Order: sequence, then C-alpha cells, then structure tokens
Amino acid sequence: MRKIGVRGTFFDFVDDPWKHVGAEAQAARFLADGLLVMTDGLIEAFGTYEALGPRHAGIEITHIEDRIILPGFIDGHIHLPQTRVVGAYGEQLLPWLQKWIFPEERKYRERDYAREGVRRFLDALLASGTTTCQAFTTSSPVATEELFEEAARRNMRVIAGLTGIDRNAPADYADTPENFYRDSKRLIAEYHKKARGLYAITPRFALGASPELLDACRRLKQEHPDCWINTHIAENPAECRGVLLDYPDCPDYLAVYEKFGLVGPKFSGGHGVYLSDGEFRRMAESGATVVFCPCSNFFLGSGLFRLGRATDPEHRVRIAFGTDVGGGNRFSMLNVLDDAYKVGMCNNTMLDGSLDPGRKDLAEAERNKLSPYRAFWSITRGGAEGLYIDDKLGNFTSGNEADFVVLDPNGGPMAQPWRQSLIREDGGPRTLEDAASLLFGVMMVGDDRCVDETWVMGKRLYKKNN
Amino acid sequence: MRKIGVRGTFFDFVDDPWKHVGAEAQAARFLADGLLVMTDGLIEAFGTYEALGPRHAGIEITHIEDRIILPGFIDGHIHLPQTRVVGAYGEQLLPWLQKWIFPEERKYRERDYAREGVRRFLDALLASGTTTCQAFTTSSPVATEELFEEAARRNMRVIAGLTGIDRNAPADYADTPENFYRDSKRLIAEYHKKARGLYAITPRFALGASPELLDACRRLKQEHPDCWINTHIAENPAECRGVLLDYPDCPDYLAVYEKFGLVGPKFSGGHGVYLSDGEFRRMAESGATVVFCPCSNFFLGSGLFRLGRATDPEHRVRIAFGTDVGGGNRFSMLNVLDDAYKVGMCNNTMLDGSLDPGRKDLAEAERNKLSPYRAFWSITRGGAEGLYIDDKLGNFTSGNEADFVVLDPNGGPMAQPWRQSLIREDGGPRTLEDAASLLFGVMMVGDDRCVDETWVMGKRLYKKNN
Repeated sequence: MRKIGVRGTFFDFVDDPWKHVGAEAQAARFLADGLLVMTDGLIEAFGTYEALGPRHAGIEITHIEDRIILPGFIDGHIHLPQTRVVGAYGEQLLPWLQKWIFPEERKYRERDYAREGVRRFLDALLASGTTTCQAFTTSSPVATEELFEEAARRNMRVIAGLTGIDRNAPADYADTPENFYRDSKRLIAEYHKKARGLYAITPRFALGASPELLDACRRLKQEHPDCWINTHIAENPAECRGVLLDYPDCPDYLAVYEKFGLVGPKFSGGHGVYLSDGEFRRMAESGATVVFCPCSNFFLGSGLFRLGRATDPEHRVRIAFGTDVGGGNRFSMLNVLDDAYKVGMCNNTMLDGSLDPGRKDLAEAERNKLSPYRAFWSITRGGAEGLYIDDKLGNFTSGNEADFVVLDPNGGPMAQPWRQSLIREDGGPRTLEDAASLLFGVMMVGDDRCVDETWVMGKRLYKKNN
Repeated sequence: MRKIGVRGTFFDFVDDPWKHVGAEAQAARFLADGLLVMTDGLIEAFGTYEALGPRHAGIEITHIEDRIILPGFIDGHIHLPQTRVVGAYGEQLLPWLQKWIFPEERKYRERDYAREGVRRFLDALLASGTTTCQAFTTSSPVATEELFEEAARRNMRVIAGLTGIDRNAPADYADTPENFYRDSKRLIAEYHKKARGLYAITPRFALGASPELLDACRRLKQEHPDCWINTHIAENPAECRGVLLDYPDCPDYLAVYEKFGLVGPKFSGGHGVYLSDGEFRRMAESGATVVFCPCSNFFLGSGLFRLGRATDPEHRVRIAFGTDVGGGNRFSMLNVLDDAYKVGMCNNTMLDGSLDPGRKDLAEAERNKLSPYRAFWSITRGGAEGLYIDDKLGNFTSGNEADFVVLDPNGGPMAQPWRQSLIREDGGPRTLEDAASLLFGVMMVGDDRCVDETWVMGKRLYKKNN
C-alpha cells in the first residue's frame, strides 16, 4: 500500500456549469492551498492543506507551487492510427478518408508499426494533459491489441475497440461483418475491464457499415451489455446524404443506429454537426452522448456544432469533447477549447438576430458561450459523465482514480505572462474567479506548453522539459 | 560596410500562387543549399551556395542547418495597445470594445506603460517570426511615439499611426477631429520615413468616426499623399448596420471611406467579412487592400471571410493577413494560417452544393483552399504587396531588406516530428514540394515554437530558447 500526497492549488467541478447560468462558479471547487491524498493511485482524501495536512503528517508529500492542478483531460473522440497524418491537406471528410487516412491506417496491420504508433499516440496525449481517451483503432485487431497493452503498461484508462467498416473503403482495408463480430468477441474477452481498459463496440460510421455489420454490433451489445458503443454521426453534409441513401427506411441519421438497438447509455456519436432538434431530443431521452470535435469540424470544414442547442435544458444531451485527431489538427484539448469557444461565438452572430431577426435566440446564444467553467468541466468531469466513467474519475472526489494535470498558467507563448498578470500581478490565484480567468487565458492564449506535469493513478508520467 | 552571409535552405515567392491554379509551385522558389549575402542589412546576392559561395569566400558566413529560412512574416493588422488583453472573454465586437479594450488602451497615455507595452508587443512579434506589422495605436500620441521609437531602435519596419476615434467610445477615450489632425501632422513629420517607420493615417473605423474626423483624414492624405491609410471595414453585422445608420447617404460600408477620398493604393481595410461583390470590385479597381484576420473573426464570432471571392481573378483584391491581436487571440501568423485554412474549408462546405445546390461554385471553392503556397505567400511576399512595401521586402530578391525567419519544421508539439517524417524520413527538404508539405505541417500542427530564429536587417534579434 503506497500512500502519498500532492499539495498545491486545485480546481475541479462538482456540478454541470450549464445548470448554473449566471452563477457558474457554483459548479466549481477551488482550493488555493489543497492536499490530495492518494493510496495506490486512488484518491483517499481531498481538502485544504490546513485541515488535512496534520492528519497525514507521516506521508510523502510533493509540493507543487505556482501551478493549478486539474483532473486529467478526457478526449472523447480520437483516432489512434491517424497520429501520423494529423494535419493532412486539402479535403473534406469523404475524399480525405480515401486519400490520406485509409492508406495510413492500413499500416497498422503490422505489429511493429502499430506499436510505434501507439507509443507516439499515448506520449502525445500525456504531453497534452490528456489522461483518458475514447479511441478508434483500425479494421484489423493488431492496433486495438497494442493500444490496450500499452495503456495497461502505463496504467491509463482507455476506451477503445476494433473499428468496423465493410463499405466505402478500399477492398484491402474493409473487413467482413463475420470477422468483425468474431474479432470483437475475442478482444472483449481479452481487454474489457482488464487493467483500466474498457471496450467499445465500434462501427466506424453508418456510411461505412452494412446492415449486417450493424446487426453484428447489435448482437455484440446484447451479449456484452456493459460494453461501450462508439461511432460517428452527422458530421458532414455529403456523408449525411449518403447515409440516408444507404438506409432509405430511416428518417434521419440517428435512426440508423436506433434501428439496430445501439442508441442508449454508453453510446457515443462523434460530431453531430447536422443533428436535428428531434435527434438531440431522442439522444437525450435515451442517455446517449454526442462528442463535440471543433478542431476537426473546422479543419475538414464540416460545420458549426450547435452547442447551445445540445445544452438546451429541454433536451440536454450528454456531451464529451474530442480532438478527433487526425480530422482535428491538434492533440491538445486546450486547442479543442480554443476552437470550441470560436464555434460558439460564430453561432452567436447568427443568433443575435443581426443577420436574420427570425433566428434570434438569446437563451441559446448564452449557452453557446464557452466560459472557462463550461470549458474545463467539459474536458474533465463533464467528459467523464459523457463517457459514463464519472463513477471512476473526472474530479478529486474520494474514491476516484488519481489522474491529474498540473497547469502553468504562464507556460505558453511569450505574450502569455503579461496577459495573465492583468488578473494576478504575482503568484497563483487566490480565488475561484481568478483561477477561472487564468484558465481562460490557458485555453485561448496558451496551449499544451501550459501542461507542466501529467499524473496517472498517482504517478507522474509526464514532465515538461523547461 | 558590413557584408555577411547566411547559408541554409531557403523558400520564398516570386509570384502570386493564386495566379497558378494547379501549378502553384511555379510561384515559389526553393534552394536546398542556398546563400544569402547581405551588406548593411540589404540583400546583395541570393543563389545556390555552389554558385555564390566561391564569389564570397572572404565573408563571415553563418551556416544554419536542418531549418527552412523564409522571409519575415508580415502582420497586416494588429493593435499594439491590446497586447495585454489578448484573449478577453465573452463578447462580440462592439460590447468587447467597451468592456475590455478601451479601458486597457486608455492606460497607454502614460509613457511608462506605453513603453512597457511596446517592448512586450515587439518581443512577442519577433518570437512569432513577424518582422513587420501594420499597427493601430491609441487616440493619444504617446503610444504611437513609443512604437516608432522602439521599432527604430530595433531597426524594424513598422507601419503605424495615431488611431482616431471621436464617436462610440468613452468620453475620456475619444478625441476631437482637430486634435487628431494636429497630432497626426506632427507625428507624420516626426516619424514618416524616419528609420524604417512608415506613417498610416488611421481612422479607427467608420462607426467611431464623425464626418469631421474622416474629413481630417482626407486633408491629411491630400497633404501627405505618400502616407498609408489604415482602418477597419465590414467586420461585424451590428457594426455594419451602425455605419449605414450613421452615414445614410452611403449605399454600403466602403462608400463611407470613398466619400472622403480615402480608398486607393496604400489603403487597408481590416476584416471585410461582409464586403459585397461590388465592394470587392471597387477595392480591386482602386488598388485598395483588405486584411484577412481569421483568428479574430472566429474569436469574436464575426463571420467567415470569403477568401475565394476576394481572390476571384475578375476582381482580385490585394490581401494581407493579420492577427488582429487582441481581437485575434494569438500573436503568431502561423496560428493565423491555421484559422485561415479552416475558414476556407468551412466556406467550401457551403460552396460544394451539398447544403444548397444554388450556392455551388467550385472555382470559388478552389480559391478558398489555403495551400501552403498561398498561405506562406500571403504572410510574406503577398503581405508586402498588400501593404505596398514589396519594393522593400517580402522575398530574397537583391536589394530587399534582409528580414527573415528560420523555421524548425519539427519545433512544435510532441506529435509534430513523426507527422513531418511522413514527408521526409531524415534531414531537411530536398525539393520544393517537400518543403511546402513540411510548411503545411508547420502551420497546422506547429506554431510559434517552430520559429527558431528571427533576423531583422541582417541581424539576429530572436533565438528560441531550446
């Protein structure tokens, strides 16, 4: 039994800031001088140093100064085998897949290549402060195996699964529904709930899935109801149109997944740019999750996710945020927050009525504003809720797994320290509000350079080379 | 007379890539092993090391390896006194000005504060590889004076001018047309064409300018016809509507500036998100320039600049790119290219006809695609053309001022080197096409960390702390 402590300035969330319009700080928790006590990687106690310190006098305590410690970031949608083709030039979703993505993903059939890809992928995540991801792999099992194996060696919590596609892909990349079913069964037995691995039944997207493949997913979910389901939904107009041509009996994109019994708790659909209000409502009612990937939606030109609509209390959908590397061009969830803020602001110029009075909706516009509270909740506690792992991690509550990131609010480009000094002339934040304002500077002016350390299960796995 | 050389891999432009659709490489120039010979900060010769080296055997040569050397970046639109409020939360243009910007800009009436701001501003530019900017200052002369003085000490080419506003600003920030005219006259005499300074008559924007202020600008331009004119145009829907209410005799935004004789060569209008085809055409015919500021247009939610429309050969407008700090949230022109690419891709999902067949325009969509050629041309040679300083700088042609940036294509986040290795397994680029592909990785996956050195007039002013 290894009991240790970390003393420093802590910031996390106990509730959803979208539930506290006008008083978002109520959703957050801030300890200017806190202590996190961990036993074997789990949080045993969390409170002020003043209160907890004397009770844990004998343990080894690491004192981290001039930093803000947050729960580790959660990337709800990322593609392991696109690590090397991040930022590939010039195409929208469908031609981009054919030109850049499938040829690279094919390489992951070779174990050595997959192993190198996994290593670089997890290194890049940890250097970005991301401690948990929900990842797509490839249509061949090698990449999935290597990802779970390496994540287990690093003791990282990862949700992933063999990524099935049997249509609209090169012949030597597509798989059959039979192989997909058989390989998924084997991988579930081998990796689901082993170490910190969680298995997601993963049909790549409806446009790449025959009814037989989706039926295999249905059977897998029925036979393994505690598995996750991860896919894409309503990302790009041409994709949406293709799906409705392939599934003419379905009135909309979501209906395809509903038809095969996949939509419910632990179901994630990436993107959702073109989801209708009705689809949002059905996702909300079923407990399904949409994963917002703004860097990707900009980079591939897919469109503007309607964040203020998805967070409408009338049909509040669970939401995680994701990089969608390589559709997204950055590994850092801080860059995701930068672009997510911009998506919200662009939406709001439509919603303020200045271009079209008929579209005026100030309540929706308010929900589009990605305050630092909403932003950092979304990539910590909110992401955990979206991925149904909030019983395990996402904030510093006792019993949770001790994954956290140590942020340097001045760690980014040269312009950052003076900007931040407008909030605090010297030293770290003393109030919750100051901390939130500094965090907005981290996401809009800073980047992964602000990630000074990343800890997983109470162990430091990344330290920035200052 | 000080003659020196720099040997390395060089990349610059001899023509506009938009004129070479399908063969953009023809606009670029690449020397895998080149030599730049400089005398007193001016380029004396540029060619292969093989050809030039023997002819310059006696001079001191700095050999820069594993890097790509480009002309210094040009930021066509930036606000000096917003350096500290970069990334300020939550508002569109007009309320953002009132809440965050005017209170900060007011501080620049104090010389000490202005001096610190200028120092940090130019430091941030150099660390981003930006060697020339066209800057807004404030309504009081102090900031303008300090900017020209410090730029002269660093020997940097800067275009700037007292920034006039006499409406829609706090009473203690707004100035009178008489003061503006008098102070501008004095500053022109003091700083225009002194050291590398160039003076821009700078009415902030039409919404902040009375007819009397714009008339003062007209007189200044008549009396100093070789001065520049810098302002904003058609940034935000509410701003545009306000301008047309203030100037009911003008049919559109551009007409306000036309009415006062300001539109022509050396006129820059920042943003232009809501310019009509007719306004583009009139700007093109007059030789005026629009400055595209994508980070800002996203950050303030202003909208999507129609790059493919502005570059229509039927009415090709001169274009520079700008950060628009603090409306833009990043000092680096590489981040500007990241967001500019995204703006183009978002436009294209409208133009491919998948959402609205009536808007299909594939030629315009092609022009929206910000290839690395178009991108780096726009922030070097193209920016120089836009600002009418291409007789002085922008590429490595003999006679030009030797401002350049040394890029490390692997200098960005942890994920970058493996991404770049897909193009070149080891060493620097050997072909123009490889260099362009690496540069796309610099702009979409890298950032200012890729700026390893920045040289101004043949002198190294910035070196990254590796």
